[in-house]
Amino acid sequence: MEYNVYLSGEIHTDWREQIKRAVAAKQLPVNFFAPNCDHESSDEVGTVILGEEPSPFWKDHKASKINAIRTNNMLAISDIVVVRFGDKYRQWNAAFDAGMAVASGKSLIVMHAPELTHPLKEVDAQALAVTETPEQVVAILEYICQPS
Amino acid sequence: MEYNVYLSGEIHTDWREQIKRAVAAKQLPVNFFAPNCDHESSDEVGTVILGEEPSPFWKDHKASKINAIRTNNMLAISDIVVVRFGDKYRQWNAAFDAGMAVASGKSLIVMHAPELTHPLKEVDAQALAVTETPEQVVAILEYICQPS
Amino acid sequence: MEYNVYLSGEIHTDWREQIKRAVAAKQLPVNFFAPNCDHESSDEVGTVILGEEPSPFWKDHKASKINAIRTNNMLAISDIVVVRFGDKYRQWNAAFDAGMAVASGKSLIVMHAPELTHPLKEVDAQALAVTETPEQVVAILEYICQPS
Amino acid sequence: MEYNVYLSGEIHTDWREQIKRAVAAKQLPVNFFAPNCDHESSDEVGTVILGEEPSPFWKDHKASKINAIRTNNMLAISDIVVVRFGDKYRQWNAAFDAGMAVASGKSLIVMHAPELTHPLKEVDAQALAVTETPEQVVAILEYICQPS
Amino acid sequence: MEYNVYLSGEIHTDWREQIKRAVAAKQLPVNFFAPNCDHESSDEVGTVILGEEPSPFWKDHKASKINAIRTNNMLAISDIVVVRFGDKYRQWNAAFDAGMAVASGKSLIVMHAPELTHPLKEVDAQALAVTETPEQVVAILEYICQPS
Amino acid sequence: MEYNVYLSGEIHTDWREQIKRAVAAKQLPVNFFAPNCDHESSDEVGTVILGEEPSPFWKDHKASKINAIRTNNMLAISDIVVVRFGDKYRQWNAAFDAGMAVASGKSLIVMHAPELTHPLKEVDAQALAVTETPEQVVAILEYICQPS
Amino acid sequence: MEYNVYLSGEIHTDWREQIKRAVAAKQLPVNFFAPNCDHESSDEVGTVILGEEPSPFWKDHKASKINAIRTNNMLAISDIVVVRFGDKYRQWNAAFDAGMAVASGKSLIVMHAPELTHPLKEVDAQALAVTETPEQVVAILEYICQPS
Amino acid sequence: MEYNVYLSGEIHTDWREQIKRAVAAKQLPVNFFAPNCDHESSDEVGTVILGEEPSPFWKDHKASKINAIRTNNMLAISDIVVVRFGDKYRQWNAAFDAGMAVASGKSLIVMHAPELTHPLKEVDAQALAVTETPEQVVAILEYICQPS
Repeated sequence: MEYNVYLSGEIHTDWREQIKRAVAAKQLPVNFFAPNCDHESSDEVGTVILGEEPSPFWKDHKASKINAIRTNNMLAISDIVVVRFGDKYRQWNAAFDAGMAVASGKSLIVMHAPELTHPLKEVDAQALAVTETPEQVVAILEYICQPS
Repeated sequence: MEYNVYLSGEIHTDWREQIKRAVAAKQLPVNFFAPNCDHESSDEVGTVILGEEPSPFWKDHKASKINAIRTNNMLAISDIVVVRFGDKYRQWNAAFDAGMAVASGKSLIVMHAPELTHPLKEVDAQALAVTETPEQVVAILEYICQPS
Repeated sequence: MEYNVYLSGEIHTDWREQIKRAVAAKQLPVNFFAPNCDHESSDEVGTVILGEEPSPFWKDHKASKINAIRTNNMLAISDIVVVRFGDKYRQWNAAFDAGMAVASGKSLIVMHAPELTHPLKEVDAQALAVTETPEQVVAILEYICQPS
Repeated sequence: MEYNVYLSGEIHTDWREQIKRAVAAKQLPVNFFAPNCDHESSDEVGTVILGEEPSPFWKDHKASKINAIRTNNMLAISDIVVVRFGDKYRQWNAAFDAGMAVASGKSLIVMHAPELTHPLKEVDAQALAVTETPEQVVAILEYICQPS
Repeated sequence: MEYNVYLSGEIHTDWREQIKRAVAAKQLPVNFFAPNCDHESSDEVGTVILGEEPSPFWKDHKASKINAIRTNNMLAISDIVVVRFGDKYRQWNAAFDAGMAVASGKSLIVMHAPELTHPLKEVDAQALAVTETPEQVVAILEYICQPS
Repeated sequence: MEYNVYLSGEIHTDWREQIKRAVAAKQLPVNFFAPNCDHESSDEVGTVILGEEPSPFWKDHKASKINAIRTNNMLAISDIVVVRFGDKYRQWNAAFDAGMAVASGKSLIVMHAPELTHPLKEVDAQALAVTETPEQVVAILEYICQPS
Repeated sequence: MEYNVYLSGEIHTDWREQIKRAVAAKQLPVNFFAPNCDHESSDEVGTVILGEEPSPFWKDHKASKINAIRTNNMLAISDIVVVRFGDKYRQWNAAFDAGMAVASGKSLIVMHAPELTHPLKEVDAQALAVTETPEQVVAILEYICQPS
Repeated sequence: MEYNVYLSGEIHTDWREQIKRAVAAKQLPVNFFAPNCDHESSDEVGTVILGEEPSPFWKDHKASKINAIRTNNMLAISDIVVVRFGDKYRQWNAAFDAGMAVASGKSLIVMHAPELTHPLKEVDAQALAVTETPEQVVAILEYICQPS
């Protein structure tokens, strides 16, 4: 079985690259998807393509909807959604993606430091695995990729 | 049409009561649902009913799952989900509920202060209304309840 | 069987009232739903409740989304959707509602003058009845309401 | 991710070709689908294949249903639906396709001139992008095709 | 539990009445639904309401679609579909209803004489009960209505 | 919110009665559903109603399918499914019901003695609560029935 | 677009071969699926593989269910279902397949002689094309396979 | 048609290998999927990857959820689910998988010795074939793989 895995959440460390490198080295049959992780182009895309907006609300709105074309479709074709919560920022879009994933029947894997356990308890409760490190995610992928 | 409305999110102000009182005064055909808003009993329910856990993670886990029996079912029968983000705490469960609501085809109304616009842009982009006050939510409910 | 019927489309004649009066006179078990048919309040609702917008696009946008809370939910609980196309205006929202209705598995009844047959052929092709008058819609409702 | 994109609506300008050429030049992983854009063969197909009809209504009916075999299936396998409204004709089938797309969970991109904003407000309100030119659609496709 | 039961198929004997009378006598919590069983009005309804058709095909077409408004909706709200095949006529609509019922996840009960076993084997194979008499259907309804 | 609760599994102790009595005493808004818990009539129903079978396999088959009319429909209208595993018998139908419940999006509550933890781990892993006693189930129901 | 087409119904003439040959000659991107059209092996498969049955009912039952593994899965992956009704036999399985196809959202094409119009009116009413000959089916497939 | 087949249940005999070898020898277009059949690594995976647990319940819980990532996804892409019940152990996960398969619309094939007929009657009643040996499963796969 080939798995499609969507890597959602925190964009300020290289956790996605760590997972992808390790999975490539192990030659696992896994395809990765991710949102646009370039903060600036993600914020600007609405006005760059569709025209300036005087109001920050509508500027964000246009950008978020174009980003949603990508993220909705990637989430839809994914079997597994990994959501990482970092120690900074509010990351509501990460929790939002987790909610979308669960309601769409995807397998949810969460990654966060132990000190976030209490505020993330509702999200963790719906996950099939709560991890702390990219290595653990890789170990899970390797485990579920064993031949039948 | 009678609407079922789930009031999700922030539990430290009386915004739910404000909405319910105003809607009752106007005699609108709206039924409200909400999570258990008592912070302590919500945190403790897993261990109180199912037995102590030495680990905070599993204590939270058991509590969150019992709370999910309530919230999943209430969300499932609701037509409209109102999610309020306050100015404190991370409120990932609020964003998670919003993601569940959107993926389940519910009408999403978000409520938050303007300064949260940027971090909430992905959630707002999926909402049918972005409000700031309980009065605005009531006005929307009154508007959509006009007889056909 | 009690039917929920959503009356979509043209808002400048009293076709909805004609249908409702006749159905009430015959005491048929039919509940009617309709969008807000007051053109002005429908156009203004977004800015009236959520605040002014300098741009006509965003003014329309806010209004349309609040109206969608009502229309999406009414369409969702309806068994039958009647869409009337008048001889004026472009009425794209009527055709949009018809598309929503068909994709959601509702029974579609279309009402329009014969001279609109050619431009409406794709919509008519998905309908279970193509009518010209409110009387015909009433006759269909009476027919399908006969006791089992 | 490879996207399937259905190009619906106006058939009297070469907007589809402009999008396809630019996307091909950029070598984006996008497959395009479209209705039969030859007006005459589309109108005649029912009677040509299934036999003459004296009534224009049934002639249109037979043609529209055969066209629906193509369009329903193409829409079903598409991730993104682009609907262009021109400045002529009523184009109810375009709005109908938009309604089908939204109710089926597809990402909707609308294209039209700014002067159509008001009559198209309900359709625009459900779209993830409202564009005016083929170039903007291409820019969105290029943006969402960036590697993960 | 209250069951909605759709009685489909043969319309030339009083099997529906036998079931309804017995169920009423036993005061079981069952609601019955049925197509229009008056052969003539069912055949004529399209042209009577929507206007004459020179072609028998389109006359049947218009009638069948109006009947489908009733039958589709009744089938949709039913929990159980009973389909009776008589010893005359081809009754393709009965088999069609059975296919609709199975694909929609309804509980299918078939009723027919033993000599029809071989031609009905594919339908019977999908049924939860294959009966021969109204009494057996009543016995099943009585059995499943026992209080929990 | 009023909950529909299906009580599946072990039929040789009075656990269902204990739950129902306590819930009635507390006047909680809960409706209970259950399979036919009379072992003998459940085993015999197929042949009693539909005629003798020389083969035990087909006797069981006919009975199980009639029972499925009841259990499938009750499960379909339930919000919560409680499955109790006793210490005797193989109770594969209880585990089968649990699988049906999870795949249908119901909230699953499991009840069993701690010594069954290991063989039931896959079922427990999908449950929102793993209980040992009827009192715990009642406590959960009371908790989730608190007014909003 | 590549279409999957399931050819259901009558098995005593070579209509399937006619369609396949013509489509192959035109090199259309169409994959065909069909039930086992060998009458005898289809009737015997249950008892041949799973053991003799004294009762003709259970013999048919076992065969029909094994055949359903094939036909259910082929129907599930098909975009278009063509159902041919011949002039002999009752062909209830053909009508049953048509009902399954419609309820599953497949495009239905019916093929039958004009004299069967009246008894097939309910099936025809749900079809997107009612044909009489294999050539017409081929012409439709050729038409919908034109490049976008 | 290429079938995806999930082989669930008993892990202490080589029935999966027998089926795979015979299917490979016959060059049938069938892909097989299976849970991790190594009992020990399956039991330990949660704690090995995610860290030790003092409680056996949570150890099992963590392992079962990681295994569920694999089994849920394999079951989701399968067309046919074969579940074998051996003569030892309680095998509740096998019955649970069968319930998941049926509720998800998969074709269920059960394999067990005749003496398990009575306790498995509810599971068998939902299956499209009840077999006793790997050879019978292979014969069914060969039969349904005949070219259309």
